[in-house]
Amino acid sequence: MIKPLFWDNNQLYIVDQTLLPIEYKRIEIKSHLDMANAIKRLAIRGAPALGIAAAAGLVLGLKPFIDSGSRLFFEKLDEISTLLNSTRPTAINLSWALKRMKSVAESMNHKPVPDIWNKIYQEALTIHQEDIEMCQVIGRHGQSIIPEKANILTHCNTGGLATGGLGTALGVIITAHQLGKDIHVYVDETRPLLQGARLTAWELSEEKVPYTLICDNMAAYIMATRKIDAVIVGADRIAANGDAANKIGTYGLAILADYHEVPFYVVAPSSTIDPSVSSGKEIVIEERSGLEVREIFGVKIAPEDCPAISPAFDVTPNGLITGIITEKVVFRTPYNFL
Amino acid sequence: MIKPLFWDNNQLYIVDQTLLPIEYKRIEIKSHLDMANAIKRLAIRGAPALGIAAAAGLVLGLKPFIDSGSRLFFEKLDEISTLLNSTRPTAINLSWALKRMKSVAESMNHKPVPDIWNKIYQEALTIHQEDIEMCQVIGRHGQSIIPEKANILTHCNTGGLATGGLGTALGVIITAHQLGKDIHVYVDETRPLLQGARLTAWELSEEKVPYTLICDNMAAYIMATRKIDAVIVGADRIAANGDAANKIGTYGLAILADYHEVPFYVVAPSSTIDPSVSSGKEIVIEERSGLEVREIFGVKIAPEDCPAISPAFDVTPNGLITGIITEKVVFRTPYNFL
Repeated sequence: MIKPLFWDNNQLYIVDQTLLPIEYKRIEIKSHLDMANAIKRLAIRGAPALGIAAAAGLVLGLKPFIDSGSRLFFEKLDEISTLLNSTRPTAINLSWALKRMKSVAESMNHKPVPDIWNKIYQEALTIHQEDIEMCQVIGRHGQSIIPEKANILTHCNTGGLATGGLGTALGVIITAHQLGKDIHVYVDETRPLLQGARLTAWELSEEKVPYTLICDNMAAYIMATRKIDAVIVGADRIAANGDAANKIGTYGLAILADYHEVPFYVVAPSSTIDPSVSSGKEIVIEERSGLEVREIFGVKIAPEDCPAISPAFDVTPNGLITGIITEKVVFRTPYNFL
Repeated sequence: MIKPLFWDNNQLYIVDQTLLPIEYKRIEIKSHLDMANAIKRLAIRGAPALGIAAAAGLVLGLKPFIDSGSRLFFEKLDEISTLLNSTRPTAINLSWALKRMKSVAESMNHKPVPDIWNKIYQEALTIHQEDIEMCQVIGRHGQSIIPEKANILTHCNTGGLATGGLGTALGVIITAHQLGKDIHVYVDETRPLLQGARLTAWELSEEKVPYTLICDNMAAYIMATRKIDAVIVGADRIAANGDAANKIGTYGLAILADYHEVPFYVVAPSSTIDPSVSSGKEIVIEERSGLEVREIFGVKIAPEDCPAISPAFDVTPNGLITGIITEKVVFRTPYNFL
């Protein structure tokens, strides 16, 4: 299992996911600015991994202020958190992890600053470790929805590269395979940035899970011509009413699943649920550059300066979601996370 | 308006559409084998253009047999027709044009072979000319479904590059713009071969029609967040009951349009209707190489040897089609083309 982020000798590294699977390159992250940049350009991505990355970025950003006074340290904590939190607006995990880090720091505010810093460093490692364990629990937990023999369709990447552990949606799928279930996965390539083709296909190859790569627009044809037992995807933020924001294309997939009477499941840690957001309408959708659509790996696929848009996420309404699987329970409609 | 195929001084040329819009390259087609190869590798594509191309290919293939006896000439006519017809199985236009050419040749079978050849050469030009006129009629005819101000979503390429004239679905859209209607087009990039991004975006740029390029998986989000007035697509074969085969992704788009209560129109010449096929289930869907999915312009986007499939078309059931627009009439459900 590959790790998107790891500490080695107190130094932080990430795998540059923009280059996978063509090139495996680890990059040292030396500061919160390096981390903010890596998150923005999607060198590290995936909702749970973003929480781990934000926490680690905060630790690095505060390191130069270990010998400062407590007031400056806490000022910098807020400043760096704000910066890291602004890198990507849709996934809740960034703000969730940063709030947790701040809360831990504040609980120590009478202690010497080096101790506070050490504590938040440990907290960043704990967040990472908890994510690994959460993936394992979700992986086992999700088996209730996977038949012994199953064709599963998935979108984007929700595996080891998107989390600290085995993954969320893909973790459930890989666990099913490891438990001896007869699994075949149809993998949406997931334009524009091809996380399905580049990352999920690669992880499934590594784990020797049988799969077939398809273009996103083939999903309806696959549902009509093969027996698909479930569509399983991740989530970047889940509103109190169960509406779920996830990678662009998820909403359309949910409509297609509904039309073909295929169960549609969202798999995410319970930290993805944001009770402060009453419905999906309130979730901010990140709009990225149209260049992501006009070019693929730097190759032009459209006329120069062709107008293009790149919404990174969409929202699937609760009525299209058969179940939401967390590390705690499989929630069923009607959802109420207040 | 660009022409996918043209005669110049009795020599036949096509524009290699696999290179557009990066490179405009015309290729001389010297024989039916050149044409078969060009069709297979999609250097020329689009259902109506395939009929024109097949007829032209047959003319070239029979040229060496002008001085042969009538028996050999007709044997070769069958042989070359079979070859050209086998290049792509889904679009009806290949067989439609070749049958028409044969019928014309047979009506002259008592005449000298050079006269027969001249007649079928003229017939190939007539098929081309008729297609140009058919596009004009369809373009005007289709205005009944386009409001004065309209956001339209389209898929693949159904413009001048796919036909002899202005296009079918895209012809209706461009005509609306030329008539002064306030049109904005959302263009599906149309993976795997990106005919939307490469060809439709380019044609709309040339015609100065406002448009936005999107990835195929953004269509549902666009329908949910913008007012889309119509989805308009072409067809490669329409069954007697109105089921329509078209570029992969069309079927999913029709489901999404239905869910969002957006009218979904198919635009095609009446020659696309195949009364010999009672429903879409009988239409053969071309399966192309998975390499089309794994690579984009020769750039690998997935692990080496990653399993992938590439069905080139899908079938939209009649119940999802609001209307079928031909050069004759706008058909409405229930369709009966027997």
